[in-house]
Amino acid sequence: LNQITIAIDAMGGDFGPKVTIPASLLTLEKHENLHVLLVGDQVLMNTELAKHSSRYGLETRLRIIHTTQQVAMDELPSQALRAKKDSSMRVAINQIKEGAAQACVSAGNTGALMAIARFVLKMLPGVDRPAIIASLPTIKPNKGVRILDLGANVDTCADHLFQFAVMGSVLVSAMDHIKRPRVALLNIGEEEIKGNDQVKHTAQLLTESDAINYVGYIEGNDIFSGDADVVVCDGFVGNVALKTIEGVANLFITYLKNAFNHNWLTRLLAVIATPALNKLKRSMDPGRRNGASLIGLQGIVIKSHGGANVMAFANAIREAIHEVEGNIPQLIRQEVGIMLEETESP
Amino acid sequence: LNQITIAIDAMGGDFGPKVTIPASLLTLEKHENLHVLLVGDQVLMNTELAKHSSRYGLETRLRIIHTTQQVAMDELPSQALRAKKDSSMRVAINQIKEGAAQACVSAGNTGALMAIARFVLKMLPGVDRPAIIASLPTIKPNKGVRILDLGANVDTCADHLFQFAVMGSVLVSAMDHIKRPRVALLNIGEEEIKGNDQVKHTAQLLTESDAINYVGYIEGNDIFSGDADVVVCDGFVGNVALKTIEGVANLFITYLKNAFNHNWLTRLLAVIATPALNKLKRSMDPGRRNGASLIGLQGIVIKSHGGANVMAFANAIREAIHEVEGNIPQLIRQEVGIMLEETESP
Repeated sequence: LNQITIAIDAMGGDFGPKVTIPASLLTLEKHENLHVLLVGDQVLMNTELAKHSSRYGLETRLRIIHTTQQVAMDELPSQALRAKKDSSMRVAINQIKEGAAQACVSAGNTGALMAIARFVLKMLPGVDRPAIIASLPTIKPNKGVRILDLGANVDTCADHLFQFAVMGSVLVSAMDHIKRPRVALLNIGEEEIKGNDQVKHTAQLLTESDAINYVGYIEGNDIFSGDADVVVCDGFVGNVALKTIEGVANLFITYLKNAFNHNWLTRLLAVIATPALNKLKRSMDPGRRNGASLIGLQGIVIKSHGGANVMAFANAIREAIHEVEGNIPQLIRQEVGIMLEETESP
Repeated sequence: LNQITIAIDAMGGDFGPKVTIPASLLTLEKHENLHVLLVGDQVLMNTELAKHSSRYGLETRLRIIHTTQQVAMDELPSQALRAKKDSSMRVAINQIKEGAAQACVSAGNTGALMAIARFVLKMLPGVDRPAIIASLPTIKPNKGVRILDLGANVDTCADHLFQFAVMGSVLVSAMDHIKRPRVALLNIGEEEIKGNDQVKHTAQLLTESDAINYVGYIEGNDIFSGDADVVVCDGFVGNVALKTIEGVANLFITYLKNAFNHNWLTRLLAVIATPALNKLKRSMDPGRRNGASLIGLQGIVIKSHGGANVMAFANAIREAIHEVEGNIPQLIRQEVGIMLEETESP
């Protein structure tokens, strides 16, 4: 096994080192070829590490990089880019640029992460804009679907959406081992006015392309049908959809509690059914599938949910490992390169 | 009580008279001042009515209007508008125009319903585009939120979104008895790039207006928080959000089944917990809150979900009754009239 080194923004997220460090140790235990660079305040990190000192033998695969600053969750991206050059986030991303790490994982401010990653790593040639891609469950057992863009961009044009389709297809092909991933375009159902101009134009580009296995329009309810492997949409629409899913999940967990809190019999049943209910809550929990990728960049950057717990943050690190193994940015570079050549040689 | 007459597109929806007629009879029984015009194929409608002949005394408040055509669920709106002048949908809407009914309810093709309603009834003065508004549950008990536009429009501008805010506010104020409804604008969370140009411009218009109790941006997960009474968004975004909610509901019902199908103990628990689980499924079922309104028109048109069952279609009829009682189109006309005067008299 080849050695993989991942830089962790240890200060990011709602819980900082309390989550990022146990999650890193957990992942180090499971992956013998993994090395971790913990980037952040050394005092806080060492305090947290001391709590887990019983885990011998991991120190050799773990290095601390001390930083003095931190990007706040509500900080403006431009401000973070300008004034936080010694932040854990910035220095973690720098590790990729300098060749010290192959990927970076952060649970910090998404806008700042995007801005810093784009500035430090630069876009892949031929890709105009980065996108955020993540996996969602479907009604088919063990079958997921990846959706992009989840909010890296607003006011995108059809060319951008087409690039997202290419990148999403490459990523799914390599990560989920699907030869020609079925790519669908998120749209609304009214026949005549089907879609806005942006979507109609993108559909045309996708239909004309041989590189993409384009399967047509998909509506919001069919995201979870398992009939598409990649769903492409504008970042505004994708972010609203993602957050709406989170909202519905919360709503249903509230319903679940209320339903079983109805009377003494249902409360008793809830106790007996605890394992089944916990299983249900886990499958509802978006954190279980934690780890969105910022793609289109010259490097692998994984964004964890800010409120991720240890298990969820460990999932995000595992996503980073898989993308390193899958060689994702290089594959996207190749595929986009081929398409550019095709377009330029009539 | 004043007499209320509602025209029913009896042929619309996935089940036609099998659902629309029992739902009409059910509602007639509950509302003594209700009269219903059943519009559709008289043979099919009479066959269905005969099945429920035990319900004496309703015939005097029920009239059949025979039509020879039907709008298909996948028919192009322009085609339906041009070629289906004797369809149950068209003739049902005509009843409002002719003063024979005060509202119309249809479970048919949304695009066709919108096109025909707009052509026959015309827009209210000062309203550029109609919108679809519906109610969603929140985590607060017995507290709903209304959201618009759910797909009547794509490629809307800030002026349209502002008009949607005014219409939504008027409707919620009258229907839900809230004096100054809290109006929020659906947006995404990234600080700096917060929103696309359309949303930013709309926020400015809403902030400047005294007529609207604008409470700012809201993200997808907060739709269900109960912190807003009206959520305003573009029809493309709203439709994706609505369909996504439907998809998540299906996904969770699948999870629920799987969780309780795990082993013999959980299967036994599922049997005992049936009432609690049914209550849970009902609260998850979007059909329970069936009945979206097409607003901005000179008349009340309610769109039922195509797959609505008898209970759900009856909910849509009840929504129509409440809008007639609430005098919604007249209230919107007044409010928009006042705003137009304010804008034109500097």
